[in-house]
Formats: sequence, C-alpha cells, structure tokens
Amino acid sequence: MLQQLFSPSLLHALDLIGIFAFAISGALLAVRKNFDVFGLAVLAEVTGLGGGLFRDLVIGAVPPAAFTDLGYFVTPLIATVLVFFFHPHVERLQRGVNVFDAAGLGLFCVVGTVKAHDYGLNLASSAALGLVTAVGGGVLRDVLANEVPSLLRWDRDLYAVPAIVGATLTALCLRFDTLNPATSASAAVTAFLIRLLALRYHWRAPRAWQRRSSVREE
Amino acid sequence: MLQQLFSPSLLHALDLIGIFAFAISGALLAVRKNFDVFGLAVLAEVTGLGGGLFRDLVIGAVPPAAFTDLGYFVTPLIATVLVFFFHPHVERLQRGVNVFDAAGLGLFCVVGTVKAHDYGLNLASSAALGLVTAVGGGVLRDVLANEVPSLLRWDRDLYAVPAIVGATLTALCLRFDTLNPATSASAAVTAFLIRLLALRYHWRAPRAWQRRSSVREE
Amino acid sequence: MLQQLFSPSLLHALDLIGIFAFAISGALLAVRKNFDVFGLAVLAEVTGLGGGLFRDLVIGAVPPAAFTDLGYFVTPLIATVLVFFFHPHVERLQRGVNVFDAAGLGLFCVVGTVKAHDYGLNLASSAALGLVTAVGGGVLRDVLANEVPSLLRWDRDLYAVPAIVGATLTALCLRFDTLNPATSASAAVTAFLIRLLALRYHWRAPRAWQRRSSVREE
Repeated sequence: MLQQLFSPSLLHALDLIGIFAFAISGALLAVRKNFDVFGLAVLAEVTGLGGGLFRDLVIGAVPPAAFTDLGYFVTPLIATVLVFFFHPHVERLQRGVNVFDAAGLGLFCVVGTVKAHDYGLNLASSAALGLVTAVGGGVLRDVLANEVPSLLRWDRDLYAVPAIVGATLTALCLRFDTLNPATSASAAVTAFLIRLLALRYHWRAPRAWQRRSSVREE
Repeated sequence: MLQQLFSPSLLHALDLIGIFAFAISGALLAVRKNFDVFGLAVLAEVTGLGGGLFRDLVIGAVPPAAFTDLGYFVTPLIATVLVFFFHPHVERLQRGVNVFDAAGLGLFCVVGTVKAHDYGLNLASSAALGLVTAVGGGVLRDVLANEVPSLLRWDRDLYAVPAIVGATLTALCLRFDTLNPATSASAAVTAFLIRLLALRYHWRAPRAWQRRSSVREE
Repeated sequence: MLQQLFSPSLLHALDLIGIFAFAISGALLAVRKNFDVFGLAVLAEVTGLGGGLFRDLVIGAVPPAAFTDLGYFVTPLIATVLVFFFHPHVERLQRGVNVFDAAGLGLFCVVGTVKAHDYGLNLASSAALGLVTAVGGGVLRDVLANEVPSLLRWDRDLYAVPAIVGATLTALCLRFDTLNPATSASAAVTAFLIRLLALRYHWRAPRAWQRRSSVREE
C-alpha cells in the first residue's frame, strides 16, 4: 500500500537510512562491549533488521525482506566498517546518530503498521506490530549484548512513546481511509519530533507507583 | 479440536485467565527490576503471549492469535495497570498469583498440545510444543529482564514437570482417541495440582550428578 | 537438493551427529551454570536445534524439521543424559567435543545454505542463513544462560569465520552449478578444518581499531 503512495525507490531509500542508523547504534554498543569485528557485524545486522524480521515472521511474509533484499543485508555491513575504523568519531557524532535513529524510529513505526494492515491484521494489532517493528531491533541488540533492554529502563528518555504515537496516527489514518503521502509522512515526522524532544528535555516515563506502605515494608 | 470439545467462549475465557496470570508475573518482575510503565507493559505482553506466539510461528498459524484477537492484546495491559497502581498489594497476594499462574500452566500445556496436533505435528512433537507454549512466556520474560530463566534454575520449585505431565497426558488421550472435555480437563487439572504441590512442598529437580572426582577437581 | 546428492540416511546421520555435538555443549554450559536436569535438557535442545529452527521459520518451512523428526528431538535428550551422569568425563573430553562441534559447524553451514537456496533465497541471503543455521544454536544457548554470546566475544577462537567460508564456498558452487557430493563435502570439510586450526592456534578476530585519540579520551 505504501508502495502505491510513495515511489518505491524513495521508500527503499528511507528504509535503508533507518536500517543504517539502527545498525550504527548496534555496532557502537558492540565496541563498548569489547566485541570483535564479527560481533560488530552481528549486532549491526540484528539491530538494523531485527524489528522488520520479526514483523515479517508474524504476518507470514516469508522469506522476510531482510533475507531477500541485498541492500538490507549490506547496509549494516557498511555501518560495521565505518564504526570499526572510525568509532571514536562516530561516538563524538552521537547526537547525529540519535537524529538518524529517531528518523528510523518514526519511519519504521509507520511502515510496520501499514505492512501489518496490508496482511490483514486489525488496526490495533497493526499498530502494535508497527511499534514492535520500530523498537524490536534495539531490544534484540540489548538481549544479545547481555544488557537490560534500554527500552525497558526507566532512566532512559522516552523511546516507546514516539513509536506508539506514530503507529496510532497511522492506524487512525487507515481507519478513516485518509492514508496518503502527506498523512503518513506527518505520522512519521510526529514520532520523529517527539523522540527528538524527549532526547532534548529528557522526558521519561513513570515507574510503578511507589505506595507509602510499600516503601515502609522494604 | 478443543473448539469442538468446549464452548468457544469458555475456552476463550480460560485462555484470558491464563494470559492474565502470566502477565501479572511479568509486570511484577518489571517492578522489581525498576522498569518504567512501558517496561511493565512489554514484560506483561511478552509473558502472557510469548508462549502461544512461538507455538503459532512454529506450526505456521500466522498471523498468530496474539495479534488477531484484541482480548489477548488488552488483557496484559489490564494486568499492567493493576500492577502499576497496586503492586504492593499484588505482591502480598503472591500466593494467589501463583495459583493463577499454575492454572495458566495447566491450561496452556493442554491447549498447546492439542493445537499443535491439529496442525499435523506428531504426538511427541505436539507434547513438546505444548510444553513450550506453557513455559515459553516465562522464559522470554526472564531473557528480556536480563535474568537467568527461572525455568532453568535448580533452586526453583518444579515448573517444567507439571507442564510435561499435562502435555503427555493430553498426547496420550490423542493417541488413544479419548480426548474429550473430561479427559482434557483432567490433564490440565493434574498439571495444575502438581504445580501447586511443588510450590507447597518445594519439590525440586536434581542437578547434574556431582561425582566425587569432579568435586575434588573444583 | 542435498537429498538428491547424498543418500538421505547418510545426510540424516550427519545431521544427528552435528545436533548431538551442539547439544553436548549446551548441556555442559548448563552444568557450569548450576542448572537442574530440565535446564540441561532445555539448553541441549536449544543449542542442537535452534539454528535449524530459526532457518526453517525464516524460509517458511513450517512446521520446522526440529518438530517433525523424532530423531532430532531425542538426540539432545541423549546428550543430556550423558552429561547429567558423566559430566566430569565429558568435560575432560572437551577436545573431542570441540571436534564434534566443529564437524556440526561445517555440516550445518553447508546444509543451511543449500536448504535456504532450495526455498528460493538469493545466493548471498542463502549463505547468510547458512551461517545463522550454524551459529544460531550457540547464540540462543548463551542468551538463555544469561551469558554474553561466545560468538561475539573477542577473546574466543574464530567461530564465525569457518562457517562464513563454508557457506560462501557452498554459495559459489550453487552459483556455478557445480554442487555435488564432492564439492559440498569439500566446503564442509574446509569449514571444519579452519575451525580446528583456529582452536589449535588460537586465531582471533580483531576488535574495533583503537585510535590513539580514543584511548586518550577514555
């Protein structure tokens, strides 16, 4: 459906940019964890492609795009090479990486929602799967690196919320039959901007309500 | 097949109860790990739906029920809200949570086995997949929370055994063509009771046989 | 396709040997992690069958062979029993286990590549999936045991490289239409020997290039 709305080559280019940004974050974590060059490549591939791979398995789109499109496979390797040789520079560009990552987040939550809906899922499930598409790669990255997933930690800036907003807006557009290049781009940009604001102002989500009784008990 | 044995609405209600119990255990772990509210929701969803999702992917039942039935998706969110606001009370009700969780375990090992068999798996594989359906959510919960899976630890009360018994009984009923509401309910109740007894009397499984030679070496 | 090249029974026997070797490594890790007997069985099954299971899900070969062939299911259980009772002896035979594991690695990267290609994947994706088939079980083993995957660590002897070589050689044979018993066996044996040499001479992969500026900063 998105293929009809946008030119395929534009959509593909956006996809690759998102995968590249995610892959950079995977490779950088691998450097921090002191992994070897194959560890970098594995984490880059998993972070870049994991969310979409899971989505495709769930909706039955096999073999998944991650294994049929050579560009999807090669992009994380380029990220690996860059980080391998220039990681101190890349680290210093963390802010730039964050902006790309936010772009990937915004794009993937929209694309994931639309693709899930194309395969017959209802609107709520499509939005949920759009969210998983956007955040799944990062969760797999952290699980493989034996870290608590950044997505779950209270001391990290909002990451799920922007994707939830983007996926929900997309689902609403599908519901009211108003999905077009302008509205889907708006949904992605909204998610992108919320993520940037969360990074800028350190917006965080609350932890479970600590009732007084609980504090006393502990 | 179970749909023919039981009224669909009863089966669905039992399913939701099991999912709810599992989701509570996921959300409580998230509170103990100090995750934010989205971490609670993610762990609740994963724990409640993970086992069935894996089963559906393996047997090719895509999109999995977890993504097509809105009730399955919403139930863990209700568990999240409850734990978020009332977690000290829920913790205090740990024994009650354990009973629900045991009920989910008993139910899911039977349902998983029957569904796998419906999709053409042989009896041993169906029982194995029934076991995975019952325990898979808990394993995913622990992996995401960066904990050693409770299922694997020797210092936890028996959890796999009740599910193995329930799944095996179900497979035997299928083998001898005697699966009916009474026998499948018996299999689920047997698993449920074994789990409760394991909790009550702290039944545990042995670790690898520590040969004297090994102890000396260490 | 491999079924046409080799006698099915020979191929099946080789498969079971590879699964057995991987399962032994899973069960031994479970002993070191102090898991109970079910923990041993779970890690043995996951290590032995995980890579092929993932491959089958990706190419849409459901239900996966791991759940339809009883021999695949039983082999890790035999490994579990052996390790449970004789683990100090098995540990002492670590070198022998490593040789079997290397054989599994060589075999699985070839089989995985060919099977993926049979299901219509392009050559690069087939080789990538062959690699995942060979190393996937070990990664799942380490994730479940809450360890940093041995595959990613810089201080372990080369493990990905032999599988990459074997998968690439297989893909080249497919490309030039020269896959036959001799060439596919050569690919597997090459991977096997590279792994043995890596173990013997402690070949390792480089970590990210530590630029002077980076060292100063840290």
